Amino acid sequence: MSRRTLKLGAVLLGVGGPGQHRTWLDPEIPADASVDIDWYVARAQEAEAAKFDLVFIVDSQFITPDSPHHYLSRLEPLTLLSALALQTRNIGLVGTATTSYNSPFNLARRFASLDHISRGRAGWNVVTSGDAGTAGNYSRDEHYDYATRYGRALEHVRVAQGLWDSYEPDALPRDKEAGVFLDPTKLHALDHRGEYFSVVGPLNLERSPQAHPVIFQAGDSEEGRDLGAEIADAIFTHAATLEQAQAFRTELRDRAAAKGRDPENVLVMPGIFPIIGETDEEARAKQDAILGSKSFERALKELGRPFGWHDFTVYDLDAPFPDVRDAGERSFRTQANAISKLARDENLSLRQVVERFSQSWSSPFVGSPETVADAIQAWYDAGAFDGINISVNVPSEFALFTDRVLPILRERGVVRREYESSTLRGNLGLPEPENRYAAARAAAPQDEPVLVS
Amino acid sequence: MSRRTLKLGAVLLGVGGPGQHRTWLDPEIPADASVDIDWYVARAQEAEAAKFDLVFIVDSQFITPDSPHHYLSRLEPLTLLSALALQTRNIGLVGTATTSYNSPFNLARRFASLDHISRGRAGWNVVTSGDAGTAGNYSRDEHYDYATRYGRALEHVRVAQGLWDSYEPDALPRDKEAGVFLDPTKLHALDHRGEYFSVVGPLNLERSPQAHPVIFQAGDSEEGRDLGAEIADAIFTHAATLEQAQAFRTELRDRAAAKGRDPENVLVMPGIFPIIGETDEEARAKQDAILGSKSFERALKELGRPFGWHDFTVYDLDAPFPDVRDAGERSFRTQANAISKLARDENLSLRQVVERFSQSWSSPFVGSPETVADAIQAWYDAGAFDGINISVNVPSEFALFTDRVLPILRERGVVRREYESSTLRGNLGLPEPENRYAAARAAAPQDEPVLVS
Repeated sequence: MSRRTLKLGAVLLGVGGPGQHRTWLDPEIPADASVDIDWYVARAQEAEAAKFDLVFIVDSQFITPDSPHHYLSRLEPLTLLSALALQTRNIGLVGTATTSYNSPFNLARRFASLDHISRGRAGWNVVTSGDAGTAGNYSRDEHYDYATRYGRALEHVRVAQGLWDSYEPDALPRDKEAGVFLDPTKLHALDHRGEYFSVVGPLNLERSPQAHPVIFQAGDSEEGRDLGAEIADAIFTHAATLEQAQAFRTELRDRAAAKGRDPENVLVMPGIFPIIGETDEEARAKQDAILGSKSFERALKELGRPFGWHDFTVYDLDAPFPDVRDAGERSFRTQANAISKLARDENLSLRQVVERFSQSWSSPFVGSPETVADAIQAWYDAGAFDGINISVNVPSEFALFTDRVLPILRERGVVRREYESSTLRGNLGLPEPENRYAAARAAAPQDEPVLVS
Repeated sequence: MSRRTLKLGAVLLGVGGPGQHRTWLDPEIPADASVDIDWYVARAQEAEAAKFDLVFIVDSQFITPDSPHHYLSRLEPLTLLSALALQTRNIGLVGTATTSYNSPFNLARRFASLDHISRGRAGWNVVTSGDAGTAGNYSRDEHYDYATRYGRALEHVRVAQGLWDSYEPDALPRDKEAGVFLDPTKLHALDHRGEYFSVVGPLNLERSPQAHPVIFQAGDSEEGRDLGAEIADAIFTHAATLEQAQAFRTELRDRAAAKGRDPENVLVMPGIFPIIGETDEEARAKQDAILGSKSFERALKELGRPFGWHDFTVYDLDAPFPDVRDAGERSFRTQANAISKLARDENLSLRQVVERFSQSWSSPFVGSPETVADAIQAWYDAGAFDGINISVNVPSEFALFTDRVLPILRERGVVRREYESSTLRGNLGLPEPENRYAAARAAAPQDEPVLVS
């Protein structure tokens, strides 16, 4: 089998990269973009015109006045994506939803509805909620611990997949002449009783065009990687260097294979931050301007997020980095631990940590259109990723990517010229999941001739 | 104040009325209409062209093979309504969502998102889930008892309203020049700790165009009426006779007044089933054909629903109606009790009960366009309702109403000629809720001059 073309995801108002906190100040972005449906429609249509595989909506259910600004007020992802569904035709619609504070019946139903409405373009980015404060919005005194979060996530997704199988493909003859709506032998209760959820079923919605909406997952912890290898069709991640990206993808594929999965069906798609200029020099100057725009004070506040929005302003900036690992235990633990470890290993002060993590960032994809295209192709050829996610927020920057970089990659056969399919699963080159009951029926000895439907 | 025009709701695939179970067999309705977004878009646009106030989507999260057919497989209401939002401009979008199996933070956010996306046309039909089997889909062995269902509903709605007030109207200056996104003194945590829910807040979504999406409520029990009088902007109900409808509306208005509310802001909107012919005779023949189409076997099965899908086929049809009141205790209790009481009072057999409740129904709105228009106006003038809900399922029948009945009512000034507002609240003539924190601020003595924003 020939390798897939490079998959392209467009992140709307995504977190990450330098300057993220300044998005709302950009003269090209309406300050209220995060609640303006027309803005989302325009960005999704631009990404579709450039033959992107998907738009991706991040999410969180907890805010503080220190949240990056757009996140203080934004639309709920599935409501938003459903509105986009009838304004687009081919692009995938991937929404973030947490397994920690939703019930599997409700989420399975909402994603299956989106899949019907979009005629097969729904995707679910499965998260467990890193912000510990989320618990307070859901009648809990404390956020679930790490093991519980990931245990719930796995069971939640398995229940959703079971509900999506409730109806066999031919369960609803809807034969008006014969007066037969349902074949009740092909509608199945799930009867799930697990550690975290009990769900009888069946789902009150038939098999959707993709059978199962595409599952995305992010999360870099041991538990996160294990969950991704188990359930994900595609993994969102980050990629600081080519070697790290290669190592991550190799590890994920190995984990998936160890679980009996075909690693070709687990796509690794890091977020990258191309900075494009007419020349390499112009692009580097652009990067310097972006980095310089972030204040130390803002960076100090944002450092608190992986540590459950811990307040770092109370410490001496030039004393050794404080030991606040406990604060991160129920938040973004992997990131918090990595920061703490580096600070210990290199004996860094708080000031040095802030500078290291927030100010001295450099994109591996900076330069002229040719330079950026070359770098993307080199990483792709080296097996660093199956696809990339890039921000679609600033129209002029996105246009530099679609109008200057993509044509080079298209000429080289790295990205598609036209959509191959009307479904997200089809465009990503992923197989359609088999219905578990239909599969069992096909495997069982037949007493009667099978009717052709 | 002059009285409002008669409000018009269009029910898509709504339950009720004779022949409901046969909807999918209608030659004008695609058999898969319940999952076909194009069908919903077309119906909503027809209702909007006729200047209806709203489309209304019913819901349930529990199915059995005996469910009325379309309900075996249908789209989730909010996902569906969000897709309709960008295909319509003026019509209200009212979705059913249960307070028994949703968290207030999630529902508040989803309805506020729909309100932003639709530019002010969202409505929430608050239900508590009558089908006791729903519990099994939400990790519960048993459905909540009646008192708990209604206690949760009231607290749930109050929490949602509190979350909708999180941002004062001018909390987000988003002043790019001054670099000020948020005025943190105008963003408020709710800090709710109640009997059923604890929710810290704030909501991560600013005040929506209607401030609070419009609240609808149905439910005919004592608890249901009390809840409606307390929280509802509009009440969905049924209306068998003019006198019953008058009495219900008077009672609801009195209850609302007793709670300190202006009864003018509680609209009573029963579902009615006009059957229209060129002549009264033709219409009556149409009604007879609809009634005759329902089999006794089907009616016997459907009688089970208010009693938690109790199986009535096991009883002797000609023995006295069995005492199965317990079966209805956690389902549609009011309806189950009414049926049981009538059977006892009149000493009816099971067969007679089936015939009474399913076969001998008669619409008060049967006749020529003039006859139906006269009846609607007579009820409206007599204070039987503030608005009506009718089914929009069968295009030719709906066209008879919009093209033949509405022009008569329009000529008489009973219904509108044009939308008065771009919001549902505006078209229903309901006041905009005041933000609780802004109100407190306005009421408090001011230390500083108030800035005009």
